[in-house]
Amino acid sequence: MIVEIVNTGSELMLGRVLNTHQQWLCRRLADLGHVVSRQVAVADTGGDIQTAVREALGRADLVITTGGLGPTSDDITRELIAALLGKKLVENKDVLAHIEGYFARRNRTRPAGTSVETFVPEGALVFINQFGTAPGLAMEVNAECGVRSAELGEQATFNAQHSKPNIQGGGKTISKKWLIMLPGPPRELRPMFDNSIVPLLKKEFADETFVCRTLRSVGVGESRVQEAIEDSLKPLVPRGLEVGYCARPWSVDVRLTAAGPGAAQIVGEGEAIVQRLLGAHIFGYDDDEIENVIVRLLTERKQTLALAESCTGGNIAHRLTNVPGASAVLLGGVVSYANSAKEKLIGVRAKTLEQYGAVSEEVAREMTLGAREKFGADFAIAVTGIAGPGGGTAEKPVGTVYIALASVAGVEVKKMLNPWDRATFKEVTATQALEGLRGLVKAAGGG
Amino acid sequence: MIVEIVNTGSELMLGRVLNTHQQWLCRRLADLGHVVSRQVAVADTGGDIQTAVREALGRADLVITTGGLGPTSDDITRELIAALLGKKLVENKDVLAHIEGYFARRNRTRPAGTSVETFVPEGALVFINQFGTAPGLAMEVNAECGVRSAELGEQATFNAQHSKPNIQGGGKTISKKWLIMLPGPPRELRPMFDNSIVPLLKKEFADETFVCRTLRSVGVGESRVQEAIEDSLKPLVPRGLEVGYCARPWSVDVRLTAAGPGAAQIVGEGEAIVQRLLGAHIFGYDDDEIENVIVRLLTERKQTLALAESCTGGNIAHRLTNVPGASAVLLGGVVSYANSAKEKLIGVRAKTLEQYGAVSEEVAREMTLGAREKFGADFAIAVTGIAGPGGGTAEKPVGTVYIALASVAGVEVKKMLNPWDRATFKEVTATQALEGLRGLVKAAGGG
Repeated sequence: MIVEIVNTGSELMLGRVLNTHQQWLCRRLADLGHVVSRQVAVADTGGDIQTAVREALGRADLVITTGGLGPTSDDITRELIAALLGKKLVENKDVLAHIEGYFARRNRTRPAGTSVETFVPEGALVFINQFGTAPGLAMEVNAECGVRSAELGEQATFNAQHSKPNIQGGGKTISKKWLIMLPGPPRELRPMFDNSIVPLLKKEFADETFVCRTLRSVGVGESRVQEAIEDSLKPLVPRGLEVGYCARPWSVDVRLTAAGPGAAQIVGEGEAIVQRLLGAHIFGYDDDEIENVIVRLLTERKQTLALAESCTGGNIAHRLTNVPGASAVLLGGVVSYANSAKEKLIGVRAKTLEQYGAVSEEVAREMTLGAREKFGADFAIAVTGIAGPGGGTAEKPVGTVYIALASVAGVEVKKMLNPWDRATFKEVTATQALEGLRGLVKAAGGG
Repeated sequence: MIVEIVNTGSELMLGRVLNTHQQWLCRRLADLGHVVSRQVAVADTGGDIQTAVREALGRADLVITTGGLGPTSDDITRELIAALLGKKLVENKDVLAHIEGYFARRNRTRPAGTSVETFVPEGALVFINQFGTAPGLAMEVNAECGVRSAELGEQATFNAQHSKPNIQGGGKTISKKWLIMLPGPPRELRPMFDNSIVPLLKKEFADETFVCRTLRSVGVGESRVQEAIEDSLKPLVPRGLEVGYCARPWSVDVRLTAAGPGAAQIVGEGEAIVQRLLGAHIFGYDDDEIENVIVRLLTERKQTLALAESCTGGNIAHRLTNVPGASAVLLGGVVSYANSAKEKLIGVRAKTLEQYGAVSEEVAREMTLGAREKFGADFAIAVTGIAGPGGGTAEKPVGTVYIALASVAGVEVKKMLNPWDRATFKEVTATQALEGLRGLVKAAGGG
């Protein structure tokens, strides 16, 4: 089964918006056993959208489009695809009632522009939008597939007979394909996919066995990770194991995938090998972020955490509080940007600040001790450093950071150099601090 | 000039990684006057990469690929494209010296796997990677362009004569095209593009006048935004103005674009109209985020800010500290997740917590007053609410939040209902708090 995604939106092509749909949909579809083979993004213009959808239908069994279903003048995907497939747009009473209700519940009159959202291609399945107004749409389309090959030298062609459904051409194969159109806003698209599209796919397409396991490591470079494991994994490759690597700042993902009946067994064997060779560096699996692992570990052990952040500016707190249930373990934190805040809120001594400077091992030590005590937590993290772009000196260049961890056993401080842009600096420093804490919590045991 | 982007990486198709290159490159290229017409992502497999690049070269004057240049076994883009273009791979001494130096400076031996990175397609321009090992590559390719059209019913074809450069076919148009290959990690790709590729593009392709202005509004829905402005903008459309809308949580962008000699004038007239009709709701332009606007406003006025965050868990601090120079205005913040932290660090009274509950107008009020006083700031923001998924009650459902703002003039508290997923809740609540502060600071004047 071949799956393609077409994202529409001029804001994508102008680089004004990040396309989060691609990752989200690819992930969901892979989990259902359908790995997306191609994703295309085009602007909100007639020719581009129709060409992309036509080409995708020429290759794929399932095409999912995103965007262009809303009420504004640049939302033209519905009209263009209806025209491409030779379908009339007809008013749908359920959609109209839903949109009327949507605005009535908010005590607002329905904007006239939303009328276009009530017109859907004739014969389409309609999915009411629980978190917005524009419905999702699904259509089964009939296609004569002359050639469906990604091999070199061949052109994929798509001779649609959309306006004359169920035609049996002279000896040609007629195959059924699905075209699904989803609204652009993520908080509308995601629940619609989970609640309406997944059941449709399960009904229309056989599940395929596909196993993907990602092992997430920190603190080792991509080449070293491969050197450590590739020879040992090689015997599994002829049996169908695929190995992938993804380098991120301060972290490398190892991805093991296989398809077919023996997939779980093969991936399981691969995972055991990676675990044995890289175990100390692996902090989690699949969707795990270090912050999720920390919250899980501390929850299991009924232990608590406090933070004192200077240069990460709340990023550690933000990442931890993204995890549902974080309130059970994170008592709180202080973002102590100003020296006065370091003194007043977490008790760093003025003398220490004066003698060593705000970015120093000594201040990091007092910050973490202060945070642990003020909040009454089992563990504390403190970071102080120079995020840049300004503020560096010859002795302490931009990227210098001290990471301090406190527990009942005392304090340890590490100096790191993370000479990257401000956003990467904050992200990497937070990752290093959380990874340090993970080691400390595991070593401390308990729970 | 037609530009296309091809992103390679199985991790993209498996949905394991977010494709940030698309936005970043599209944005940079649009700013240079080259709007990308199509972006394609495919897996790290031979057929898919070659097909995508071949098709893109059939349509575009400039094709940029990302990823697949690294040292691991799934980095195959360089080899595949060299094969597609009929180029030999030859060792490059400069790249070898750079990679040797890269590891020597880190006191590490060079991993054997990095040798593949030293081989580049014969005749390619080579860009040394200042933040990694794999070089970027650029090649001028000759193509007979039979058809180059995105119109319906036509197939783009690409008959490359790569192995025989500069051939003049019998009466056919020979056009020059550029293929540029960039490494996958963003912190390697971005400086390489800015430092090496931009100069190449300026040399090889004439600048085209393209003006894009985004006006960013908060607190009005997408339909209402369009209703407010569309009739007044209509007279500019025949002159070349394009109007786009992008709905985000609690925010709508209005995008005005035009190309050609009169573009700046037309976009300027459009901007004046939108400004007149939506002014109160517009917080910024183009890349502005509310946090940048706040830091700019407070810096101009030499005023300071403190935060007390409960349900946003550090997100407001994180967003503000993403802005270079934030340290001049943000004295600090407290993430007061636990009630004890609300009491001890910012002086919320135990009695208030007990009587009204942590999520209440009264607690929000005491949090903001406490933060303003503890940090000695001109302004303070406090938020307390229920981010979910747990913790809601009939009276205070998930999404309930109190946002309090303090200044020398006193305190104001707003109750909002943001019944979305945890991440959206945090983001929208932070936006609402910062937007409230923007209004308050502007109203207060000074500076």
